[in-house]
Amino acid sequence: MHNSFKAKLHDAWSQQNSLLCVGLDPNPELMPGHLQHRAHNVFDFCTAIIDATHDLVCAYKPQIAYFADTAKEEQLQAVIAYTQQHYPHIPIILDAKRGDIGSTAAMYAREAFDRFNADAVTINPYMGRDSAQPFLERDDKGVFILCRTSNAGGAEFQDLVVEGVPLYERVALNVVTNWNTNDNCALVVGATNPAQMQRVRTLVGDMPFLVPGVGAQGGDVASLLGAGLTQPKTGLVINSSRGIIFAGSGEDYAQQARKAALALRAEINQHRAVD
Amino acid sequence: MHNSFKAKLHDAWSQQNSLLCVGLDPNPELMPGHLQHRAHNVFDFCTAIIDATHDLVCAYKPQIAYFADTAKEEQLQAVIAYTQQHYPHIPIILDAKRGDIGSTAAMYAREAFDRFNADAVTINPYMGRDSAQPFLERDDKGVFILCRTSNAGGAEFQDLVVEGVPLYERVALNVVTNWNTNDNCALVVGATNPAQMQRVRTLVGDMPFLVPGVGAQGGDVASLLGAGLTQPKTGLVINSSRGIIFAGSGEDYAQQARKAALALRAEINQHRAVD
Repeated sequence: MHNSFKAKLHDAWSQQNSLLCVGLDPNPELMPGHLQHRAHNVFDFCTAIIDATHDLVCAYKPQIAYFADTAKEEQLQAVIAYTQQHYPHIPIILDAKRGDIGSTAAMYAREAFDRFNADAVTINPYMGRDSAQPFLERDDKGVFILCRTSNAGGAEFQDLVVEGVPLYERVALNVVTNWNTNDNCALVVGATNPAQMQRVRTLVGDMPFLVPGVGAQGGDVASLLGAGLTQPKTGLVINSSRGIIFAGSGEDYAQQARKAALALRAEINQHRAVD
Repeated sequence: MHNSFKAKLHDAWSQQNSLLCVGLDPNPELMPGHLQHRAHNVFDFCTAIIDATHDLVCAYKPQIAYFADTAKEEQLQAVIAYTQQHYPHIPIILDAKRGDIGSTAAMYAREAFDRFNADAVTINPYMGRDSAQPFLERDDKGVFILCRTSNAGGAEFQDLVVEGVPLYERVALNVVTNWNTNDNCALVVGATNPAQMQRVRTLVGDMPFLVPGVGAQGGDVASLLGAGLTQPKTGLVINSSRGIIFAGSGEDYAQQARKAALALRAEINQHRAVD
């Protein structure tokens, strides 16, 4: 297990003294103006953010859609390779939310783990365990399964009650009892409803949570820490994307991103009651 | 609505006299040996299949995972462009099963509809309507929402009962009552359980179904037609991938694919009681 994603994440939590994950969503319309028309601008933008924040984070989370919209997969591959070369202790979670029948899911697992060499990936549970199997069997990799998402529409199906519990709890239960045979499962649990996060935490022990929804989506840091922390005050990968990477829009955008990352890490650590 | 996906699909059903969709899943391990090491072999393979079957189908369904595993997106783009140039009356359904928060889903909609120029795309409903909105608002395009999938694991969550109905029925109900404001929604309903398909058909009227699971996965043609046909004996996009594209493994693979497509179309049309 020493080369596993989970070990790498635990090391990053403690050595970096951080639960902060920076989400790399290089939306072309929000990128600094002076980068707009530069070749490889997405690579330049992401790596400048990474260089400015690498000592403050427990993970980076590139969102593949922002590379797939206009054929920038090579830049995604280069961003991940750059991070692994310069900051090999920081895990990369590829946010892809894939989900398909097993033979197709095997191809998606190759995409995430072999083509892009990510340490972990997000997947969608709707099609059941066999659709997750090609990811789960990669026991050195992490698999973050969508449980309760942070968007307003997350309630539409995820909160429906099935056999006495909301669907998102049932997903958590099935993952912890049946999907986690390689001890490489984790869950996506949004920051916007701490009571729901607390329920999920009681169901799954110290399984890591990827927590979107802080900042732009309105999640509150103190509440989510109260709901989701495990001992020793870790267990959470708290993601902020827009609030950090688009903190500035001028030539000093990387320094502005660092300031925003410092502030959010400090807020998190204050509520964790660690320095 | 004349240039819409739905109009194009209805025209293809009647003009091609076919409900058959050929799924383009160019698995490198299953491709004919003489193509294995050729550059652009995926493009060559798919376009040979298309040339051999274009008069027999109502749609093609390329599965993006088989292009994303090892960076073959340019070949996917070329396959779609080739089809649209030579057979512009045949709709292309990009099987991608995307799903994410709205700002990210907007990027996935660009990937499917602008980068790849697909006529329709498959998406996952787990994150709710706001995650589908960037797809739904493209009223010239089709949006196939996963309802009841054909894999064994499809039952794990989709069959759970919520407020008196299985989750997959609730998805169908929400789509027909709330998601379909642009009349561009369709559903993915597997061939492996005709009773479930029949229930969904009663809920959603003549909404098109994409039906995977015939052939390799065991779905029976007569039963699914009895369960899912609408008037005038259409309503279904019956997909076969492996059973057609890998019908032969020698140099005559395209002719073997044509034979398999002819046989499945004939079987479908016999049970539709049309010539």
